[in-house]
Amino acid sequence: MCKVDVQERILAKNESTADHNRSHMRAAGVLCVNLMGSPGAGKTAVLEATSRGASNDLSIGAIAGDLATDNDARRLQAAGIQAEAVNTGSMCHLDAELVHRALHHFRLDDVDLLFIENVGNLVCPAVYDLGQAVNVVALSVTEGEDKPLKYPTMFAKADLVLLTKTDLLPHLPNVSMQAIHDAIARVMPRPRVISFSAVDGTGVNQFLEWLKEAA
Amino acid sequence: MCKVDVQERILAKNESTADHNRSHMRAAGVLCVNLMGSPGAGKTAVLEATSRGASNDLSIGAIAGDLATDNDARRLQAAGIQAEAVNTGSMCHLDAELVHRALHHFRLDDVDLLFIENVGNLVCPAVYDLGQAVNVVALSVTEGEDKPLKYPTMFAKADLVLLTKTDLLPHLPNVSMQAIHDAIARVMPRPRVISFSAVDGTGVNQFLEWLKEAA
Repeated sequence: MCKVDVQERILAKNESTADHNRSHMRAAGVLCVNLMGSPGAGKTAVLEATSRGASNDLSIGAIAGDLATDNDARRLQAAGIQAEAVNTGSMCHLDAELVHRALHHFRLDDVDLLFIENVGNLVCPAVYDLGQAVNVVALSVTEGEDKPLKYPTMFAKADLVLLTKTDLLPHLPNVSMQAIHDAIARVMPRPRVISFSAVDGTGVNQFLEWLKEAA
Repeated sequence: MCKVDVQERILAKNESTADHNRSHMRAAGVLCVNLMGSPGAGKTAVLEATSRGASNDLSIGAIAGDLATDNDARRLQAAGIQAEAVNTGSMCHLDAELVHRALHHFRLDDVDLLFIENVGNLVCPAVYDLGQAVNVVALSVTEGEDKPLKYPTMFAKADLVLLTKTDLLPHLPNVSMQAIHDAIARVMPRPRVISFSAVDGTGVNQFLEWLKEAA
């Protein structure tokens, strides 16, 4: 059996578990968001700021994936979010089975939105369906302008890009927002971008509106 | 044949090609550095600044890996560095075979140092030996404090960590350099860290000294 066969078999099994997760989520009336991005793109900060902005409007839960530590889940819990940590060990992405196991510990009926905060990585997380309804990619303005072109699959599969850490723009004279938007437009079929800062609150309400529409 | 067998066979084949690459590099008297880090950690900027600082002292070459585009190789060539682009397609890391093929186009005798700028990813690049002599990890201060704990294998295998974009520190009130150093010390067997800014030149000379010692 060659490498490709094994890979295909893994992805087929993943797909069927993802469909199972999706049924669970639909039955509970929960919108599931696969939140992806580089290490340090600010995914956890996005969730903290979104939860603050949502107040009593929407109840948010999260499954936080990392190779090691439960740091993100603990940060989210401290922000009042029902959060479950999933450690992938050496694996560079979450898969549907890991999410399925985490769901068994999760009170889905208590939340309207479930974010799956994926492992920080702009490559493999895009390939593994987890059972989400939508994909959101957090891209920090500190990462430079050409990341969408260098990691096209991630952005081709995104329903929304959050351009994070925009509060740092005045200190990044060589970063052009226009160039980032142009790069996104070249790889994302229906470009949808929200500028976001967890520090000054930019984009939080816009993101909440987008989530409500998606739900 | 199970997934693990296939993975082991791939890694064993990779190891033998890496050893072959290493022999090439040793025969040419070239120090080969595997430069890893997140997308947007500033790996290309490190090479541009290092090349500027090296002047006629050291001749630098680079193999620049990315899923798509030859943006980095073109930036490096514009900085006077002999550079070869390698596209990995959907693969989240370089492997020894891709580097071997790139070496066939490379004038190794013209350089003292060969940087392999790996795909932006804090996970899988750490597992694939390319034939390098040393591993250097670029970690941007904008990525937050706990990345070494979340991606321990990358830092456990590093010979040096370059803490990049330190010029932005005044604008990151919640980032403590001490906390980053502490996190590195918990996972890196012999912690060695240089603060680096491609913008203001911090750390360039220190990095060049480190490279000369390693050579």
